[in-house]
Amino acid sequence: MSRPRPSAALSAALAAIAPADAESARAAERRLANLAIPPGGLGRLGALAVRLAGSAGRCPPPRPTCPVLVVAAADHGVHVHGVSPWPQGLTAAMAATLAEGAAAGNALARAVGARVRVLDAGIAEPPIRAAGLRRAGVRAGAGDLAAGPALAPEEADAAVRAGIATAEEALAEGADLLVTGDMGIANTTSAACLVAALTGRRAHDVVGPGAAGPAADLPAKRALVDAAVARADLDGDDGLGALTAFGGLEHAALAGVCLAGARARVPVLLDGVSAVAAALVAVRLAPATVDHLVAGHRSPEPGASVGLAALGLDPLLDLAMALGEGTGALLAVPLVAAAAGVLTEVRTLEDLASAGWPLS
Amino acid sequence: MSRPRPSAALSAALAAIAPADAESARAAERRLANLAIPPGGLGRLGALAVRLAGSAGRCPPPRPTCPVLVVAAADHGVHVHGVSPWPQGLTAAMAATLAEGAAAGNALARAVGARVRVLDAGIAEPPIRAAGLRRAGVRAGAGDLAAGPALAPEEADAAVRAGIATAEEALAEGADLLVTGDMGIANTTSAACLVAALTGRRAHDVVGPGAAGPAADLPAKRALVDAAVARADLDGDDGLGALTAFGGLEHAALAGVCLAGARARVPVLLDGVSAVAAALVAVRLAPATVDHLVAGHRSPEPGASVGLAALGLDPLLDLAMALGEGTGALLAVPLVAAAAGVLTEVRTLEDLASAGWPLS
Repeated sequence: MSRPRPSAALSAALAAIAPADAESARAAERRLANLAIPPGGLGRLGALAVRLAGSAGRCPPPRPTCPVLVVAAADHGVHVHGVSPWPQGLTAAMAATLAEGAAAGNALARAVGARVRVLDAGIAEPPIRAAGLRRAGVRAGAGDLAAGPALAPEEADAAVRAGIATAEEALAEGADLLVTGDMGIANTTSAACLVAALTGRRAHDVVGPGAAGPAADLPAKRALVDAAVARADLDGDDGLGALTAFGGLEHAALAGVCLAGARARVPVLLDGVSAVAAALVAVRLAPATVDHLVAGHRSPEPGASVGLAALGLDPLLDLAMALGEGTGALLAVPLVAAAAGVLTEVRTLEDLASAGWPLS
Repeated sequence: MSRPRPSAALSAALAAIAPADAESARAAERRLANLAIPPGGLGRLGALAVRLAGSAGRCPPPRPTCPVLVVAAADHGVHVHGVSPWPQGLTAAMAATLAEGAAAGNALARAVGARVRVLDAGIAEPPIRAAGLRRAGVRAGAGDLAAGPALAPEEADAAVRAGIATAEEALAEGADLLVTGDMGIANTTSAACLVAALTGRRAHDVVGPGAAGPAADLPAKRALVDAAVARADLDGDDGLGALTAFGGLEHAALAGVCLAGARARVPVLLDGVSAVAAALVAVRLAPATVDHLVAGHRSPEPGASVGLAALGLDPLLDLAMALGEGTGALLAVPLVAAAAGVLTEVRTLEDLASAGWPLS
């Protein structure tokens, strides 16, 4: 199979993505060192503040006040192989529940002050009823990745652009922190294929039970993933090829969310294995994207840790959450806001000395 | 030395503390199992929701909307032995900075919507200027724990009660989540003694560099702690005796905050090693207190992990922060609010099926 090329529209988006600004990051490091805090006392929060400054190209970085969760939902032809115990119809039901505000992703979004956008990136059911749900209109569910390519190259490209468009709509309305969420019955199988193909690892290292829990038939899922990855025979840097081979449409859309954030120099918080797989695709398409990503939560799915290591990212949280919908990443939103805030709001030791405190 | 007995006022407070309500916790487990979430998908957030229900004695537990950070500040006679590179005057300067809203604890409190109360539990400097700072009025700094008891038993008792009074004032104004914070130059030495004495461990296991960072003289600090703990020769359940032997006044006050939260069935978020040492004291005074504690952040100080293990608590965050002021615990506030919220706001699978979604 020849390697797919990005469309002109997608190529233009990719070309506009710039890496972190090293001078802004250095300025943040200097500022941190002067605060009335023991050296290194902010730990990983300090490192996050430096990363945010580099991503924004400003020191201090803007403090996010308008986080937006984008949940991309789609179905998967590979569901017919029994990789999930859940009925495919749950994707549509949960997408509607998310649009109506009654899912776990909504509860956690409210807890951290985030708005929620739901994108039907490719749900198999007929268009669902919920108001406020956007539709990508690319395809009603990815094909069976075990039988052949899950998507046509043009479909993968269009789904990435649908994710970009959804994120850009949020950015135009003021979003200053993007949070990735996914909903898609059977989508950890696609995600495992994406991670394996883009990191050169075998199924043994990247396949987990997903939402099946202890009931999962891991040997069968691993065999399916290894066979699909072997058949596709991709280059490890072929992001669009990997999306074409394995789907899903939600992974493509979330790759678009990562790209849109990077282009706008707005940080993108990654959730679990589907978001990590999407981030790998985005970074293969435009390597500078990685400088604008922040890992929110370490999913128990082994593919998430493999993908994060390949991206050089260490998650802020490790709460053993495994339900998608952006829930893990949402809980990291306050950490991002706090990291940005601490750089601007804390007095320096010089301030204290010049105020007359006996510090020497 | 005879074992100190709590005053009548403190004894009355201790007697009013009840353990978790098992029926409320079971009700939360049942509720979790019915949500439209994969089994176990909420991970540690689900376990936290169950713990909050048990602590509150209600299911669903109330969702905290008014978190309050109580920062207790005090000085330490052991400072003369060079256990900290920082001048003692920094305690007063930082307490004033906290009261004025310009310290790291304030920045992170704002980031998570918490109010801040600062208690001068025993600062050595003359009364400081900041408005809004409460004074315990017990003693201006603990004595040198290396030379003899740091406090008189009546002083330790009074400082615990000052912490209770400060927390109860916050509770009366609507606080529904208490967050522990500390400020006290040299206080990791007192904290290490408290943890060692109350867990039966040696200094090697509990002494870290504190705010000294890599410059710390750990062998000297360990020798000082081992000698002090050996001389005090306490029973491992003698919380008031440990406060008397080692101080500090801020540890006593934070033990009071733990006790006040437990009595009111309001959860108390623990910060670093000083808060953990204070929690050990509180739990030795009233064992049921532990059911109302939530560990916020794993301090790099080894005594924090030893103390948390003795309390049976596993922190929500591990961000390598080491600056006190409640900063680590504050970042866990949104997780507590989210855990409580998720139980009430998420639809059940039965809801989806009865709404006509094709789920079987």
